[in-house]
Formats: sequence, C-alpha cells, structure tokens
Amino acid sequence: MTIAEVRLTPVLVADAPLLNVQGVHQPYTPRLVVEVVTEDGVSGLGETYGDRGYLAAARPLARTLRGRPVTEVNGLAGLAERVCGGAADGAGGGGLRGVRTAGKLRLSVVSAFEVALLDALGRTVGLPVHALLGGKVRDTVDYSAYLFHRWAGHPGGGPVDDWGAALDPAGIVAQARRFVRDHGFTSFKLKGGVLPPDREVAAVRALAEAFPGSPLRLDPNGAWSVETSLRVARELAGVLEYLEDPTDTTERMARVAAATEVPLATNMCVTTFAEIPEAFARRAVAIVLCDHHYWGGLRNTQHLAAICRTHGVGVSMHSNTHLGISLAATTHVAATLPGLDHSCDTHYPWLTEDVVTERHVFTGGALTVGDAPGLGVDLDRAALAALHRRWLADDGTLRDRDDAAAMRAADPGWAVPDLPRW
Amino acid sequence: MTIAEVRLTPVLVADAPLLNVQGVHQPYTPRLVVEVVTEDGVSGLGETYGDRGYLAAARPLARTLRGRPVTEVNGLAGLAERVCGGAADGAGGGGLRGVRTAGKLRLSVVSAFEVALLDALGRTVGLPVHALLGGKVRDTVDYSAYLFHRWAGHPGGGPVDDWGAALDPAGIVAQARRFVRDHGFTSFKLKGGVLPPDREVAAVRALAEAFPGSPLRLDPNGAWSVETSLRVARELAGVLEYLEDPTDTTERMARVAAATEVPLATNMCVTTFAEIPEAFARRAVAIVLCDHHYWGGLRNTQHLAAICRTHGVGVSMHSNTHLGISLAATTHVAATLPGLDHSCDTHYPWLTEDVVTERHVFTGGALTVGDAPGLGVDLDRAALAALHRRWLADDGTLRDRDDAAAMRAADPGWAVPDLPRW
Ligand SMILES: [Mg+2]
Ligand SMILES: [Mg+2]
Repeated sequence: MTIAEVRLTPVLVADAPLLNVQGVHQPYTPRLVVEVVTEDGVSGLGETYGDRGYLAAARPLARTLRGRPVTEVNGLAGLAERVCGGAADGAGGGGLRGVRTAGKLRLSVVSAFEVALLDALGRTVGLPVHALLGGKVRDTVDYSAYLFHRWAGHPGGGPVDDWGAALDPAGIVAQARRFVRDHGFTSFKLKGGVLPPDREVAAVRALAEAFPGSPLRLDPNGAWSVETSLRVARELAGVLEYLEDPTDTTERMARVAAATEVPLATNMCVTTFAEIPEAFARRAVAIVLCDHHYWGGLRNTQHLAAICRTHGVGVSMHSNTHLGISLAATTHVAATLPGLDHSCDTHYPWLTEDVVTERHVFTGGALTVGDAPGLGVDLDRAALAALHRRWLADDGTLRDRDDAAAMRAADPGWAVPDLPRW
Repeated sequence: MTIAEVRLTPVLVADAPLLNVQGVHQPYTPRLVVEVVTEDGVSGLGETYGDRGYLAAARPLARTLRGRPVTEVNGLAGLAERVCGGAADGAGGGGLRGVRTAGKLRLSVVSAFEVALLDALGRTVGLPVHALLGGKVRDTVDYSAYLFHRWAGHPGGGPVDDWGAALDPAGIVAQARRFVRDHGFTSFKLKGGVLPPDREVAAVRALAEAFPGSPLRLDPNGAWSVETSLRVARELAGVLEYLEDPTDTTERMARVAAATEVPLATNMCVTTFAEIPEAFARRAVAIVLCDHHYWGGLRNTQHLAAICRTHGVGVSMHSNTHLGISLAATTHVAATLPGLDHSCDTHYPWLTEDVVTERHVFTGGALTVGDAPGLGVDLDRAALAALHRRWLADDGTLRDRDDAAAMRAADPGWAVPDLPRW
C-alpha cells in the first residue's frame, strides 16, 4: 500500500454568474484534482481549491508522498508544514472564507491529499471512506438549496445556462421552486450581501411564504454592521433557522450574538482551530460551518465536530464551488458525525460539468451514503482532460479565482467593498 | 463484516499491594475482556473495567451488536445510551478517576467494544488499528515508570511478588532502578497521596538525584489543599515535569495553576467532555491525561487530543491496572497523536498475569508500534479461562474494585479520607 505516483491536474470548471458581496463568480473556477496511485495500481481521488498558491503548495507535497504508505494521513499536515511553501492565500475569493494564512492554505491542500489517500485505502481494502472514519451514523445526508442573486449571463461572456436572472424576491422564489422540483430540497440558504438588507429580508420573507415551515438561512458574508445585523435579526426572528456571518470579525459577531435569539452560524470568523478558543469563549457563534478543505480534511472535520459538541456549538457544512469528488467526501464525513442537526451547503446543483463518471443525484434534497469502496466515485478521464485543457489555454486571467475582477467586466470601477457595507 | 457473536469474560487479575490515597490495590482486580466475532470467524479483542456496573452495562450492548456491521464504531455511544442501564459508577476505585456518572461508565464499556470492533476490522482487512485511526505519526510510544509506595505483600493474603516494600525515598529509588534495568524507562511517575507531603517531596528529590535530568511527576490524587499544593510546587519547581492532580476539583486546581509555574496535569478534574469548557476556561490544567476507557475509546481519545491542541493544553495517557489488550490499544492510539509530548502512564510492568499470548516488552521504556493486523495481540484462551475461573470462584468480595476495603484488611478502621487530606 505504498504511494507510487501523485498526479495533480488543475482544471477550470464552468460556473454560473452568482453574486456575492465581493463580486460575481468567474465564468470558470479553478479547482485542483489530486490523484494518488498506489504500487498496486489503485487510484484515489481528492479535490481542492485550484488557485496558483494551492498548486504551488501541492507540488512539493506530491513529490514527497511517493514511497510513503497510503495509510498515513495523520502525518500529512506535519509533512506539508515541512515541505510546502509559506505563502498566504492572497486570492480574491479568500475573504469569503475568513483569514488567509499560509497554514490554512496548506491545510486546504492537505485535505485533497487526505481524501485521495482515504479513497485509495478504501479501494484497496474494500471499505467505503465512511468506514475508515469510524462508520456512518446515518444513511443519507441532507443538503440545502443554495440560492443566489444572479445574472442571466456572465458580463464578459462565458458558459450560458437557462436559469435566467434572479434579482428580486420573485426571482429567488422561482429559483427555489426549480431546486425543489429537480432535487427535492426542503431547506434553503440565500446568499446575501448583494442587495441592500431590506431587499434581502424581503426575499427571505417571500421564501417563508412560499415554503412554510422550511428551514431558511441568510448569509451576507459579513456585509453588515452590528446594528444592521440586529435589525435584520429582529425582522427575521422566528423565520430564520440561523443567520450566517451577518457581520465580520469575532468581536462584532459576539456583539450580535449577545443581543439576539437568532442563532449565528459562521464560515468566516471561525475557520481555523486557532480561532476557536476566543470565538467560543465570547459565544460569538452557535453553529460552525465546516469546510473539509480549509479545515484540513475529513479527520479534522470530525475533530472540529467533537470540539463543537464539547462546547455546545452546532456544526454543519460550508461549500464553495466544487466538483463531485468533494461532494462525495463531504457526504462521507457528514454521515459519520453525531449531532449534525442542520442540512449541509453545496454549490453542486449549479454545476454543469464534473470530472466523475456519474453525477450525484439528490433525492428529497439528500444524498445516499454509498457503501462502495473508497469515495464511490470514478474519474471521467476525458472530462478531466477537457477541463485541464481549458486551464492550459487560459492566459492566467482565471487561474486565481477573483470575484471582484469578474465583477469589473460589468462595472469597471468595482472594488471589494469595505465591510461593513451596510 | 457482520458481528456474529460478542463474548464477555469477567476476570480477576493478580495485582500488587500498591498504595494510594484511597487505600491499597486489591490482591485481584476485576477486568472485563470483550471478544467480538464476525460472521467470517474473525475475532477482535477489547478490555475495560470489570466491576459489576460495567458488566451490567456491557451485557445489553453485547446483545444489541449481533448482526451489526463491524465498521460502525461511531454509532456505539448512541447505541449504548439507548440500551445500557443508567446506573452511575459507585465503585470505590472511581474516585481516583474523577466524576462517577452513568454516561462515563457507559463510555468505559463502549471503549472495550470500540477497540474490539477495530481489532476485528483490522484483522479482516489486514490493517493495524493505528491505520484505521489515520495512521501512526511515530514508530515507538514512550512510557514512564510508574512508582508506588507499597507493601511487600497483601495484608489479607494474595499473590506474592519479589519487589518487597517501598515506603521511603530509598525504597522508591530502588524500585525505579529495577524498572530502569528491566524496561529502560527514562521518565518516572510517583503515585503520591500516601505519606505526608514532605516525605513524598523527599522521594521525588531522591529520584531527581538518582536520575538527573529525567522527567519526574508526582500524583497525590487530589489529596492536598491549595496551600499544600502550592508549597510542594514551590519546593519541587524545576524538578517536576508536571504535578498531577495535587488537589481535587476544577476550582482548586485553577487556584493552584494560577499561582505556580509548575504545569498541572489531571485525570481527575477533566475526565469527560462535559468538564472541558469550564476547566479550560479557568486554565485549571496544562495537561490532560486521557484514558481511552473512560473517554469512550480510541477515536474519542483522538478528539480529546485535538481539543487539547486547539486550546493549547497538552495531552498524555493515564493508566489503571490493565491487561495487554488495553496496552496495545493505548499504544496504537498514542502512535497517532501529533503533539504527544509526555510519556504515557502504564501499570503493566506490575502485572504478572496477562490474557495475551506474548507479553509486551519495553525497550528503552518504549513500545514499538506494531504493523500486524488489528491490535497485534492474540488471546491466550487458557490464561483467560484461568482468570475467569478465579472470578467465578470469588464470593463477590473482589468483583468490585475497592481499595478502601482492601486497606481495611490491614487497618480495620480505615475509611477513604476526606479531601484535602493534607
Ligand atoms: Mg457563508
Ligand atoms: Mg492520576
């Protein structure tokens, strides 16, 4: 069970013109596919952010792994610390997921290798990844419909879809209805921070009316002041399951949390183990949205969940634009967590391209936890090659995700707003 | 990989007349051996406390496990909560390891099943337990010499060994020399709380003189007041690696910790996840001594280590009288923990009996982390049967470990002292 080869394939994946506080999703998003091959010829897959800094850190780690046992995932973070470079994550998209440290970038890289090793190990011994994580405690994992204010198309051209624009409550409800029809979702998250708060409150109210009793969330990515956050919390009390990162910084989140009964969730002020003690001591958050990429993998996700449970904090899953490999990984680890009381986020339904042979299919908004060996997904090599060719053909413009730069195609004067914006 | 059968075998294991604040070890200590057999005929071993309350909780859990997958260890705690009884651990030995709740007793039972499932799974797929825990980050695990004030023999009769008595500094140093000669230990822990503090301080000073530069620890099991703890800490500053549970309760430990530079370790005031938030917030302890039995297994041990790392608290391993199954389990999980900066405790060298076919052998005070499938230990069925016959033959006197009752064989008026004793 020795690692013979590690293949790194950066790709550009078609994305939709989804709006957030920093700007708009690029027409194509960089991702990195990691493939580990053992001496016995077994392959394991992982996936993470594909921006250049991640690629630069992944290369030395890939070289170092050759000849090592596929079983040794606990040592990956230490290994990465020794061999990867120390550059922080300066990419434009980083602000949406909290601090941008070298350690966090490294962990995001480690996560893809960890998942690939677990996939290879599982395939070698005939166990699903969840069994390598101590076994599932549920047979399906619930996901929520991830709603976005969006344009019909990318301002500078790019992939076209048939969703049309959604820039008001009616558009958001229509989007939600299509998600329900196609995937059966029963909970909804609206990405906020795009329109003035009152208009986003109106969109949430419209969702509450259209889907009475369904859990609803609103996530402005820290766009609001403490005062605005509290005003929205008052207006949506009893309507929201939780309010996600209404304001930025632990200090402001703590002030909001102290003054509202609406639970606060975060994937911005608690995104590393180092941020936990202060945030939990100040009771800044009620739910941590884990992302196995930047928390450093599936085992760290389990550790994070145990920490949250210990401190009486809830846990669920954050998502960024990702492929079917990471969705499989999220599903496996989510299946192993006792106390996962909130449905997970995923951008997956927005995606029209993938590198796995069979797309994941949601039933009733949930994915079934597979018992096939490893992650249970297979690589579509032709699809991977095509997305890699797109990456090769890019002149560098898209190789670092930069939602603000993408926004400037529509609004040349656009800059990432100073927070709080409202 | 379905569980076909679960065998529970309570045993009584010969023990030495080791002294502590509550009394003296019984001549025979109850332990419970758990054997899980899969439908394919693969066996997995686990071990835990054998007192009657543990046995009573283990029986319904054993019944429920039949027909379940051997892979599903994350679900064990929830399962135990549903099927095991709710009695708290009232046994006399419990006070040496903190609170005695029904939940903690249940987790101690779960731990043996978890280890047995992991052993069976590892044997089935050809992986060592450490690989099922994410892989080792070290090839050997350091243990410390566990020194005790002791008598030459049990007051009421029982197994006899050739150690003789150790009731003063010279006796403790002689004991330590024998441990070094036989096992190569390079760090030492003295069980305290037996003699007045000045005499135990003198024993530690004698150790420091005999083994200059070696890490030394003193553990009076909460026997001292805050004032006494601080006096000992002053006298042994620069000599002790850490002071272990000098006083009981989180509140008193916090007061000691606030007034000394000597790090405080515990296996008494932080013994459950529920105790962590307050103890860590008050900075009551610098090192948590995990015991995979009462923390609920090897995966929970990994979670605890992650929690400690997150809060800047160290971690190492506590021990109670145990057999070679649990020593193997401790070694496997210890091998997987980054940041295990202190050698682990074990009573194993005091033991003259075991239920495994080959005794563990310390080299340089360390055990090598094996790569054989599962735990890497095999059951000696004849030895197990003999120790079980001893349990069957017992009239009930020894089936609950009670160090105070054992002490009354020498001192009929003995009662567990009120703490603080000094
Ligand atoms: Mg968010
Ligand atoms: Mg202790």
